[in-house]
Amino acid sequence: MTDIIVIGAGASGMTAALYALRNGKSVLLIEGNGIGGQIAQSPRVENFPTITKISGNELADKLFEQISAKGVQFEFGTVQNIQKKGDTFEVTTDFDTYTAKSVIIAAGVQHRKLHLPKEEQFIGHGISYCALCDGAFYKGEEVVLIGDGNTALQYALLLANDCKKVHVVIMFDTFFGDQALVDALEKTPNITVTKQSKLIALEGEDSLTGVTFEKQNGETFTIKTNGLFVAIGQVPKNEIFAHLVDLSKEGYIVADETCETKTKGLFVCGDCRTKQVRQLTTACGDGAIAGTKASTYCSTLQ
Amino acid sequence: MTDIIVIGAGASGMTAALYALRNGKSVLLIEGNGIGGQIAQSPRVENFPTITKISGNELADKLFEQISAKGVQFEFGTVQNIQKKGDTFEVTTDFDTYTAKSVIIAAGVQHRKLHLPKEEQFIGHGISYCALCDGAFYKGEEVVLIGDGNTALQYALLLANDCKKVHVVIMFDTFFGDQALVDALEKTPNITVTKQSKLIALEGEDSLTGVTFEKQNGETFTIKTNGLFVAIGQVPKNEIFAHLVDLSKEGYIVADETCETKTKGLFVCGDCRTKQVRQLTTACGDGAIAGTKASTYCSTLQ
Repeated sequence: MTDIIVIGAGASGMTAALYALRNGKSVLLIEGNGIGGQIAQSPRVENFPTITKISGNELADKLFEQISAKGVQFEFGTVQNIQKKGDTFEVTTDFDTYTAKSVIIAAGVQHRKLHLPKEEQFIGHGISYCALCDGAFYKGEEVVLIGDGNTALQYALLLANDCKKVHVVIMFDTFFGDQALVDALEKTPNITVTKQSKLIALEGEDSLTGVTFEKQNGETFTIKTNGLFVAIGQVPKNEIFAHLVDLSKEGYIVADETCETKTKGLFVCGDCRTKQVRQLTTACGDGAIAGTKASTYCSTLQ
Repeated sequence: MTDIIVIGAGASGMTAALYALRNGKSVLLIEGNGIGGQIAQSPRVENFPTITKISGNELADKLFEQISAKGVQFEFGTVQNIQKKGDTFEVTTDFDTYTAKSVIIAAGVQHRKLHLPKEEQFIGHGISYCALCDGAFYKGEEVVLIGDGNTALQYALLLANDCKKVHVVIMFDTFFGDQALVDALEKTPNITVTKQSKLIALEGEDSLTGVTFEKQNGETFTIKTNGLFVAIGQVPKNEIFAHLVDLSKEGYIVADETCETKTKGLFVCGDCRTKQVRQLTTACGDGAIAGTKASTYCSTLQ
């Protein structure tokens, strides 16, 4: 039996593993996709403290090397089920079943996708899901942003600081975010808002060169741009944990910064829990908390 | 007028500055002591994600270089007063007065000191205030820990994972922490507890070689050790902010992970706010939140 199983090898899960290992606990890290989670998609990271510039992949590799050197065990697999029997957790993947005294869920989220041709190909080549991460790379340029919630509104305001022009295009005739942000948007001269328009095509060969929309009356129009920011929501995948945690309406695991769930010994960190700011650095902060608390929990079990 | 003033150039304040700068805001960072805050005291940092080993000073320098390259303004000075007049904050140091739309308090805490001769000299040479940071450097050795609260109890359990023996010495005849932790401590074979004993002297020339205690009956005893962990509490210094924020009984600024205070536009991050886990990585996580939220706040003001 391992002391602690961490589900998810994104930045948060790997930081949780780091803190648990530093606390002398044995740690099994389980991941069904690539190392690094979302950050691995980011071509350039410039907002991680102490690192001026690094690719998301390289950052993820460094973190994985760091925990590997400290003895983390790693298993590839997608978690299918988790059960608590007495003080023991059983975690079942598509390959095997593992037991631990404590479990940390760091399952992350996925950006809601456009489901358009060339989308996957253009990620990192014109399509970004994070204005905070990538906005500064479009300094002085015209960009397009789609989305109508608080994240989209905040992204538009942030992009307007650096970009020549921000074309915000929304599906309906209103925003679904804070009025203060909508007011601020309307007062910002280099932001234009186009309503009731649906993105229907991504233009370009090797990288994005434009985006085509369809209006309600069936007319189409194309905006030339090298940068499309997509802020149409995120999708957590927490259903398999629902018997052990509370889920919010949106499917996030309900937890505050203590990273505790309603099940003793079960912790949650990173983007998959309820929180306001989902960033690489906040994911790591969470990981430090969950790793520390899970370690203390294991020590009290004995 | 600057967009955002950050009070305190520790890891949290510098990360807040980084996120605000990345959001296109102008940032003035004010610090009255050295760059880096508490972490600058740590000879080796091994628990920061992506960095296998670095001195606290070097880490602080890297972070300062990163924000300097992004155009942070820096002023040396100790903040004496802060006032909000309309939507403008006035921050007065011992040198000058500065104005901003938003202020982030990242004033940190200070470890409560022993007030014994040679204490300052031995910090980083045998005296540590952080078992999480420095415990692993005493693998296989005998260490002494003083303190009777939850932090001390957690430190003792963590140290027991790696150290040959942990001598816990407390002033009174009981602990003042969670019973589960006290129970765990008592069950851990390589931890001994000595009660009603007061630390009176630090032995050694260039580095710590032992610690001397006095019992209630006046007898003294010395434990030979290269490692003394001091967990007798921390002291925030938030009195000058008390008219704009709520302070906890212990003097911390009351705020949850949103980093918001009761004053609009005034944010708080890092060790100086109410929270459970005070670590380098959690301080940075906080900074990312406060920097992001202060930026959004400035954008909504216009």
